[in-house]
Amino acid sequence: MKINSKLLNDAVESLAALPGIGKRTALRLSIHLLQSDSTYRERLAKSVSDLSQVQFCTRCHNIADGSLCEVCADTRREQKTICLVETIQDVMAIEETGQYMGLFHVLGGIISPIEGIGPEDLTIAELLERVQQERPEEVIMAISPTIDGETTMFYISKLLSRHAHVKVSQIARGVAFGGELQYTDELTLARSIMTRTPYLVS
Amino acid sequence: MKINSKLLNDAVESLAALPGIGKRTALRLSIHLLQSDSTYRERLAKSVSDLSQVQFCTRCHNIADGSLCEVCADTRREQKTICLVETIQDVMAIEETGQYMGLFHVLGGIISPIEGIGPEDLTIAELLERVQQERPEEVIMAISPTIDGETTMFYISKLLSRHAHVKVSQIARGVAFGGELQYTDELTLARSIMTRTPYLVS
Repeated sequence: MKINSKLLNDAVESLAALPGIGKRTALRLSIHLLQSDSTYRERLAKSVSDLSQVQFCTRCHNIADGSLCEVCADTRREQKTICLVETIQDVMAIEETGQYMGLFHVLGGIISPIEGIGPEDLTIAELLERVQQERPEEVIMAISPTIDGETTMFYISKLLSRHAHVKVSQIARGVAFGGELQYTDELTLARSIMTRTPYLVS
Repeated sequence: MKINSKLLNDAVESLAALPGIGKRTALRLSIHLLQSDSTYRERLAKSVSDLSQVQFCTRCHNIADGSLCEVCADTRREQKTICLVETIQDVMAIEETGQYMGLFHVLGGIISPIEGIGPEDLTIAELLERVQQERPEEVIMAISPTIDGETTMFYISKLLSRHAHVKVSQIARGVAFGGELQYTDELTLARSIMTRTPYLVS
Protein backbone atom coordinates (compact mmCIF):
# COMPACT_ATOMS: atom_id res chain seq x y z
CA MET A 1 0.00 0.00 0.00
CA LYS A 2 1.29 3.44 -0.94
CA ILE A 3 1.80 5.66 2.11
CA ASN A 4 2.09 9.29 1.18
CA SER A 5 3.78 10.54 4.34
CA LYS A 6 7.47 9.90 4.88
CA LEU A 7 7.05 10.04 8.67
CA LEU A 8 4.25 7.49 8.68
CA ASN A 9 6.16 5.32 6.26
CA ASP A 10 9.22 5.33 8.56
CA ALA A 11 7.08 4.15 11.48
CA VAL A 12 5.49 1.41 9.36
CA GLU A 13 8.87 0.18 8.13
CA SER A 14 10.47 0.05 11.56
CA LEU A 15 7.44 -1.69 13.11
CA ALA A 16 7.25 -4.19 10.22
CA ALA A 17 10.83 -5.24 11.02
CA LEU A 18 9.56 -6.81 14.26
CA PRO A 19 9.03 -10.60 14.11
CA GLY A 20 5.45 -11.63 13.37
CA ILE A 21 4.39 -8.09 12.41
CA GLY A 22 3.56 -7.74 8.73
CA LYS A 23 3.30 -4.55 6.72
CA ARG A 24 -0.47 -4.36 7.10
CA THR A 25 -0.36 -4.79 10.89
CA ALA A 26 2.48 -2.27 11.07
CA LEU A 27 0.28 0.22 9.21
CA ARG A 28 -2.64 -0.45 11.56
CA LEU A 29 -0.37 0.05 14.60
CA SER A 30 1.21 3.20 13.13
CA ILE A 31 -2.19 4.75 12.48
CA HIS A 32 -3.25 3.84 16.00
CA LEU A 33 -0.07 5.50 17.31
CA LEU A 34 -0.72 8.53 15.11
CA GLN A 35 -4.16 8.92 16.65
CA SER A 36 -2.96 8.29 20.22
CA ASP A 37 -1.90 10.76 22.82
CA SER A 38 1.64 12.06 22.26
CA THR A 39 2.48 11.16 25.90
CA TYR A 40 1.91 7.52 25.05
CA ARG A 41 4.06 7.76 21.92
CA GLU A 42 6.89 9.29 23.97
CA ARG A 43 6.53 6.60 26.63
CA LEU A 44 6.73 3.84 24.03
CA ALA A 45 9.70 5.47 22.27
CA LYS A 46 11.54 5.95 25.57
CA SER A 47 10.93 2.41 26.79
CA VAL A 48 12.22 0.96 23.50
CA SER A 49 15.27 3.21 23.58
CA ASP A 50 15.92 2.46 27.29
CA LEU A 51 16.24 -1.25 26.53
CA SER A 52 19.86 -0.41 25.66
CA GLN A 53 20.44 -0.01 29.39
CA VAL A 54 19.29 -3.54 30.24
CA GLN A 55 22.28 -5.61 31.30
CA PHE A 56 22.89 -9.30 31.55
CA CYS A 57 23.84 -10.93 34.84
CA THR A 58 27.59 -11.56 34.84
CA ARG A 59 27.02 -14.79 36.75
CA CYS A 60 23.99 -16.50 35.13
CA HIS A 61 23.30 -14.40 31.97
CA ASN A 62 19.73 -13.65 33.04
CA ILE A 63 18.56 -10.06 32.42
CA ALA A 64 19.57 -7.65 35.15
CA ASP A 65 19.16 -3.97 35.91
CA GLY A 66 22.65 -4.02 37.47
CA SER A 67 25.59 -6.43 37.19
CA LEU A 68 23.81 -9.24 39.06
CA CYS A 69 20.23 -10.34 38.37
CA GLU A 70 17.51 -10.43 41.03
CA VAL A 71 18.00 -14.16 41.56
CA CYS A 72 21.78 -14.04 41.91
CA ALA A 73 21.59 -10.95 44.13
CA ASP A 74 19.20 -12.71 46.51
CA THR A 75 21.39 -14.43 49.13
CA ARG A 76 18.44 -16.42 50.45
CA ARG A 77 18.42 -18.48 47.24
CA GLU A 78 19.79 -21.99 47.52
CA GLN A 79 23.38 -21.55 46.25
CA LYS A 80 24.20 -25.19 45.51
CA THR A 81 21.66 -25.86 42.74
CA ILE A 82 21.88 -24.47 39.21
CA CYS A 83 18.94 -24.78 36.82
CA LEU A 84 20.12 -24.73 33.22
CA VAL A 85 17.66 -23.07 30.80
CA GLU A 86 17.67 -21.97 27.17
CA THR A 87 16.29 -18.44 27.45
CA ILE A 88 15.42 -15.68 29.88
CA GLN A 89 11.74 -16.43 29.17
CA ASP A 90 12.33 -19.88 30.69
CA VAL A 91 13.74 -18.22 33.83
CA MET A 92 10.56 -16.12 34.02
CA ALA A 93 8.32 -19.17 33.53
CA ILE A 94 10.09 -21.12 36.31
CA GLU A 95 10.15 -18.09 38.64
CA GLU A 96 6.41 -17.72 38.00
CA THR A 97 5.80 -21.19 39.50
CA GLY A 98 7.33 -20.02 42.81
CA GLN A 99 8.54 -23.59 43.42
CA TYR A 100 12.23 -23.30 42.63
CA MET A 101 14.60 -21.68 45.11
CA GLY A 102 18.00 -22.34 43.49
CA LEU A 103 20.01 -20.41 40.91
CA PHE A 104 19.88 -20.35 37.09
CA HIS A 105 22.22 -20.45 34.15
CA VAL A 106 20.91 -19.12 30.82
CA LEU A 107 22.45 -20.90 27.81
CA GLY A 108 21.17 -18.38 25.28
CA GLY A 109 19.79 -21.08 22.97
CA ILE A 110 20.39 -24.72 22.14
CA ILE A 111 22.82 -26.51 19.87
CA SER A 112 21.25 -26.66 16.41
CA PRO A 113 23.33 -27.86 13.46
CA ILE A 114 20.54 -26.83 11.05
CA GLU A 115 20.47 -23.24 12.31
CA GLY A 116 24.25 -23.22 12.61
CA ILE A 117 24.29 -22.80 16.40
CA GLY A 118 27.26 -24.59 17.94
CA PRO A 119 28.38 -25.00 21.58
CA GLU A 120 30.66 -21.95 21.24
CA ASP A 121 27.60 -19.73 20.58
CA LEU A 122 26.13 -20.65 23.96
CA THR A 123 27.30 -19.97 27.52
CA ILE A 124 28.54 -23.55 27.98
CA ALA A 125 32.16 -22.55 28.67
CA GLU A 126 30.90 -20.10 31.29
CA LEU A 127 28.78 -22.86 32.86
CA LEU A 128 31.79 -25.18 33.18
CA GLU A 129 33.85 -22.40 34.74
CA ARG A 130 31.02 -21.69 37.16
CA VAL A 131 30.76 -25.37 38.10
CA GLN A 132 34.52 -25.42 38.75
CA GLN A 133 34.46 -22.28 40.88
CA GLU A 134 31.12 -22.46 42.70
CA ARG A 135 31.13 -26.26 43.06
CA PRO A 136 27.33 -26.71 43.01
CA GLU A 137 25.82 -30.00 44.16
CA GLU A 138 23.34 -30.29 41.31
CA VAL A 139 22.74 -29.01 37.79
CA ILE A 140 19.11 -29.43 36.69
CA MET A 141 18.75 -29.36 32.91
CA ALA A 142 15.41 -27.68 32.13
CA ILE A 143 15.74 -27.89 28.36
CA SER A 144 12.90 -28.48 25.87
CA PRO A 145 12.64 -32.19 24.93
CA THR A 146 13.12 -31.60 21.20
CA ILE A 147 15.81 -33.30 19.08
CA ASP A 148 18.09 -30.27 19.40
CA GLY A 149 17.29 -30.05 23.10
CA GLU A 150 18.19 -33.71 23.66
CA THR A 151 21.46 -33.21 21.73
CA THR A 152 22.31 -30.20 23.88
CA MET A 153 21.56 -32.09 27.10
CA PHE A 154 23.67 -35.05 25.97
CA TYR A 155 26.58 -32.76 25.08
CA ILE A 156 26.46 -30.80 28.32
CA SER A 157 25.98 -33.86 30.54
CA LYS A 158 29.10 -35.40 28.96
CA LEU A 159 31.13 -32.31 29.86
CA LEU A 160 29.67 -32.12 33.36
CA SER A 161 30.44 -35.80 34.01
CA ARG A 162 34.12 -34.81 34.35
CA HIS A 163 33.18 -32.97 37.50
CA ALA A 164 32.60 -35.84 39.90
CA HIS A 165 31.09 -33.64 42.62
CA VAL A 166 28.08 -32.46 40.60
CA LYS A 167 24.84 -34.41 40.16
CA VAL A 168 23.18 -33.84 36.78
CA SER A 169 19.41 -34.18 36.49
CA GLN A 170 16.69 -33.26 34.02
CA ILE A 171 13.13 -32.05 34.58
CA ALA A 172 10.46 -34.75 34.53
CA ARG A 173 8.78 -35.67 31.26
CA GLY A 174 5.22 -36.94 31.37
CA VAL A 175 1.57 -36.28 30.73
CA ALA A 176 0.81 -32.61 31.42
CA PHE A 177 -1.79 -31.63 34.02
CA GLY A 178 -5.13 -31.37 32.26
CA GLY A 179 -3.72 -33.38 29.33
CA GLU A 180 -5.84 -36.26 28.08
CA LEU A 181 -4.15 -39.66 27.96
CA GLN A 182 -5.61 -40.67 24.60
CA TYR A 183 -4.20 -37.61 22.88
CA THR A 184 -0.72 -37.87 24.42
CA ASP A 185 2.00 -38.98 21.97
CA GLU A 186 3.35 -42.54 22.31
CA LEU A 187 6.85 -41.53 23.34
CA THR A 188 5.67 -39.36 26.23
CA LEU A 189 3.13 -41.95 27.34
CA ALA A 190 5.62 -44.84 27.21
CA ARG A 191 8.16 -42.77 29.13
CA SER A 192 5.62 -41.67 31.72
CA ILE A 193 4.82 -45.32 32.47
CA MET A 194 8.47 -46.32 32.70
CA THR A 195 9.34 -43.42 34.99
CA ARG A 196 6.18 -43.74 37.13
CA THR A 197 6.33 -42.31 40.65
CA PRO A 198 4.81 -43.66 43.92
CA TYR A 199 1.27 -42.47 44.57
CA LEU A 200 1.23 -40.77 47.96
CA VAL A 201 -2.01 -40.62 49.92
CA SER A 202 -1.75 -37.43 51.92
CA MET B 1 4.67 -13.66 33.92
CA LYS B 2 7.01 -12.01 36.41
CA ILE B 3 9.60 -9.81 34.70
CA ASN B 4 12.50 -9.00 36.98
CA SER B 5 13.81 -5.98 35.12
CA LYS B 6 12.05 -2.66 35.40
CA LEU B 7 13.33 -1.54 32.00
CA LEU B 8 12.10 -4.67 30.25
CA ASN B 9 8.81 -4.43 32.09
CA ASP B 10 8.32 -0.83 30.89
CA ALA B 11 8.84 -1.92 27.29
CA VAL B 12 6.40 -4.82 27.68
CA GLU B 13 3.74 -2.58 29.21
CA SER B 14 3.96 0.11 26.56
CA LEU B 15 3.93 -2.42 23.71
CA ALA B 16 1.01 -4.31 25.25
CA ALA B 17 -1.02 -1.09 25.13
CA LEU B 18 -1.09 -1.38 21.31
CA PRO B 19 -4.30 -2.86 19.87
CA GLY B 20 -4.11 -6.59 19.16
CA ILE B 21 -0.83 -7.00 21.06
CA GLY B 22 -1.20 -9.07 24.22
CA LYS B 23 1.19 -9.26 27.16
CA ARG B 24 2.85 -12.43 25.86
CA THR B 25 3.44 -10.99 22.37
CA ALA B 26 4.70 -7.76 23.95
CA LEU B 27 7.21 -9.80 25.95
CA ARG B 28 8.33 -11.67 22.84
CA LEU B 29 8.76 -8.38 20.94
CA SER B 30 10.59 -6.75 23.86
CA ILE B 31 13.05 -9.62 24.11
CA HIS B 32 13.58 -9.45 20.37
CA LEU B 33 14.24 -5.72 20.70
CA LEU B 34 16.57 -6.37 23.62
CA GLN B 35 18.61 -8.73 21.48
CA SER B 36 18.56 -6.46 18.41
CA ASP B 37 21.07 -3.92 17.35
CA SER B 38 20.78 -0.64 19.30
CA THR B 39 20.67 1.26 15.97
CA TYR B 40 17.38 -0.49 15.17
CA ARG B 41 15.96 0.29 18.62
CA GLU B 42 16.86 3.97 18.17
CA ARG B 43 15.32 4.01 14.69
CA LEU B 44 12.07 2.49 15.99
CA ALA B 45 11.95 4.86 18.96
CA LYS B 46 12.61 7.88 16.74
CA SER B 47 10.01 6.91 14.14
CA VAL B 48 7.36 6.45 16.84
CA SER B 49 8.26 9.76 18.45
CA ASP B 50 8.36 11.56 15.07
CA LEU B 51 4.74 10.62 14.41
CA SER B 52 3.93 13.72 16.48
CA GLN B 53 5.09 15.77 13.48
CA VAL B 54 2.60 14.17 11.09
CA GLN B 55 -0.03 16.73 10.16
CA PHE B 56 -3.46 16.45 8.65
CA CYS B 57 -4.33 18.13 5.38
CA THR B 58 -6.26 21.32 6.12
CA ARG B 59 -8.37 20.75 3.02
CA CYS B 60 -9.23 17.02 2.98
CA HIS B 61 -8.02 15.72 6.40
CA ASN B 62 -5.75 13.11 4.83
CA ILE B 63 -2.31 12.73 6.45
CA ALA B 64 0.21 15.26 5.24
CA ASP B 65 3.85 16.11 5.88
CA GLY B 66 2.97 19.77 5.41
CA SER B 67 -0.31 21.70 5.50
CA LEU B 68 -1.62 20.11 2.28
CA CYS B 69 -1.49 16.38 1.51
CA GLU B 70 0.16 14.94 -1.59
CA VAL B 71 -3.18 14.65 -3.37
CA CYS B 72 -4.36 18.20 -2.64
CA ALA B 73 -0.91 19.62 -3.44
CA ASP B 74 -0.94 17.95 -6.87
CA THR B 75 -2.55 20.48 -9.23
CA ARG B 76 -2.85 17.82 -11.99
CA ARG B 77 -5.58 16.11 -9.96
CA GLU B 78 -9.12 16.56 -11.19
CA GLN B 79 -10.37 19.41 -8.95
CA LYS B 80 -14.11 18.97 -9.50
CA THR B 81 -14.57 15.50 -8.00
CA ILE B 82 -14.41 14.71 -4.29
CA CYS B 83 -14.30 11.11 -3.07
CA LEU B 84 -15.70 10.81 0.44
CA VAL B 85 -14.01 8.10 2.57
CA GLU B 86 -14.06 7.02 6.20
CA THR B 87 -10.33 6.77 6.97
CA ILE B 88 -6.87 7.58 5.66
CA GLN B 89 -6.40 3.84 5.02
CA ASP B 90 -9.27 4.10 2.50
CA VAL B 91 -7.41 6.93 0.73
CA MET B 92 -4.34 4.68 0.53
CA ALA B 93 -6.38 1.75 -0.80
CA ILE B 94 -7.97 3.90 -3.54
CA GLU B 95 -4.65 5.56 -4.42
CA GLU B 96 -3.15 2.09 -4.71
CA THR B 97 -5.58 1.25 -7.54
CA GLY B 98 -4.18 4.15 -9.59
CA GLN B 99 -7.61 4.58 -11.21
CA TYR B 100 -8.92 7.66 -9.41
CA MET B 101 -7.63 11.10 -10.32
CA GLY B 102 -9.91 13.35 -8.25
CA LEU B 103 -9.65 14.67 -4.70
CA PHE B 104 -10.62 13.14 -1.36
CA HIS B 105 -12.39 14.09 1.84
CA VAL B 106 -11.66 12.00 4.94
CA LEU B 107 -14.64 11.80 7.32
CA GLY B 108 -12.67 10.31 10.20
CA GLY B 109 -15.22 7.55 10.82
CA ILE B 110 -18.90 6.89 10.29
CA ILE B 111 -22.02 7.77 12.24
CA SER B 112 -22.57 5.03 14.82
CA PRO B 113 -25.22 5.50 17.52
CA ILE B 114 -23.96 2.35 19.30
CA GLU B 115 -20.40 3.64 19.55
CA GLY B 116 -21.67 7.13 20.32
CA ILE B 117 -20.24 8.70 17.15
CA GLY B 118 -22.48 11.49 15.87
CA PRO B 119 -22.22 13.76 12.78
CA GLU B 120 -20.43 16.41 14.89
CA ASP B 121 -17.53 13.96 15.53
CA LEU B 122 -16.85 13.70 11.80
CA THR B 123 -15.68 16.26 9.23
CA ILE B 124 -19.18 16.66 7.76
CA ALA B 125 -19.41 20.40 8.49
CA GLU B 126 -16.02 20.86 6.79
CA LEU B 127 -17.28 18.88 3.78
CA LEU B 128 -20.33 21.12 3.41
CA GLU B 129 -18.16 24.23 3.66
CA ARG B 130 -15.83 22.77 1.04
CA VAL B 131 -18.74 22.01 -1.28
CA GLN B 132 -19.95 25.58 -0.88
CA GLN B 133 -16.55 27.11 -1.57
CA GLU B 134 -14.98 24.75 -4.11
CA ARG B 135 -18.27 23.96 -5.92
CA PRO B 136 -17.30 20.44 -7.05
CA GLU B 137 -19.36 18.74 -9.76
CA GLU B 138 -19.53 15.38 -8.01
CA VAL B 139 -19.17 13.85 -4.57
CA ILE B 140 -18.54 10.07 -4.72
CA MET B 141 -19.42 8.36 -1.45
CA ALA B 142 -16.92 5.48 -1.02
CA ILE B 143 -18.28 4.30 2.33
CA SER B 144 -18.48 0.68 3.57
CA PRO B 145 -21.95 -0.81 2.87
CA THR B 146 -22.67 -1.63 6.52
CA ILE B 147 -25.73 -0.45 8.45
CA ASP B 148 -23.78 2.45 9.96
CA GLY B 149 -22.28 3.19 6.56
CA GLU B 150 -25.68 3.32 4.87
CA THR B 151 -26.95 5.62 7.64
CA THR B 152 -23.99 7.93 7.14
CA MET B 153 -24.50 8.02 3.36
CA PHE B 154 -28.20 8.75 3.78
CA TYR B 155 -27.46 11.58 6.23
CA ILE B 156 -24.75 13.17 4.09
CA SER B 157 -26.68 12.82 0.83
CA LYS B 158 -29.62 14.64 2.44
CA LEU B 159 -27.36 17.55 3.40
CA LEU B 160 -25.68 17.60 -0.01
CA SER B 161 -29.03 17.63 -1.82
CA ARG B 162 -29.39 21.28 -0.73
CA HIS B 163 -26.51 22.09 -3.06
CA ALA B 164 -28.19 21.77 -6.46
CA HIS B 165 -24.92 21.98 -8.38
CA VAL B 166 -23.39 18.83 -6.95
CA LYS B 167 -24.07 15.29 -8.19
CA VAL B 168 -23.91 12.68 -5.41
CA SER B 169 -22.93 9.11 -6.31
CA GLN B 170 -21.82 5.98 -4.49
CA ILE B 171 -19.29 3.29 -5.45
CA ALA B 172 -20.76 0.23 -7.17
CA ARG B 173 -21.89 -2.72 -5.08
CA GLY B 174 -21.70 -6.16 -6.63
CA VAL B 175 -19.98 -9.50 -6.77
CA ALA B 176 -16.25 -9.04 -6.15
CA PHE B 177 -13.70 -10.14 -8.76
CA GLY B 178 -12.77 -13.74 -8.00
CA GLY B 179 -15.87 -14.07 -5.84
CA GLU B 180 -18.05 -17.12 -6.41
CA LEU B 181 -21.70 -16.48 -7.18
CA GLN B 182 -23.05 -19.29 -5.01
CA TYR B 183 -21.29 -17.95 -1.91
CA THR B 184 -22.33 -14.33 -2.44
CA ASP B 185 -24.97 -13.09 0.00
CA GLU B 186 -28.53 -12.60 -1.30
CA LEU B 187 -28.60 -8.84 -0.87
CA THR B 188 -25.44 -8.29 -2.92
CA LEU B 189 -26.53 -10.76 -5.57
CA ALA B 190 -30.04 -9.27 -5.90
CA ARG B 191 -28.57 -5.79 -6.12
CA SER B 192 -25.94 -6.81 -8.65
CA ILE B 193 -28.68 -8.13 -10.94
CA MET B 194 -30.82 -5.02 -10.54
CA THR B 195 -27.90 -2.68 -11.21
CA ARG B 196 -26.47 -4.76 -14.08
CA THR B 197 -24.24 -2.96 -16.59
CA PRO B 198 -23.98 -3.39 -20.38
CA TYR B 199 -21.47 -6.04 -21.46
CA LEU B 200 -19.00 -4.36 -23.77
CA VAL B 201 -17.13 -6.46 -26.31
CA SER B 202 -13.83 -4.67 -26.77
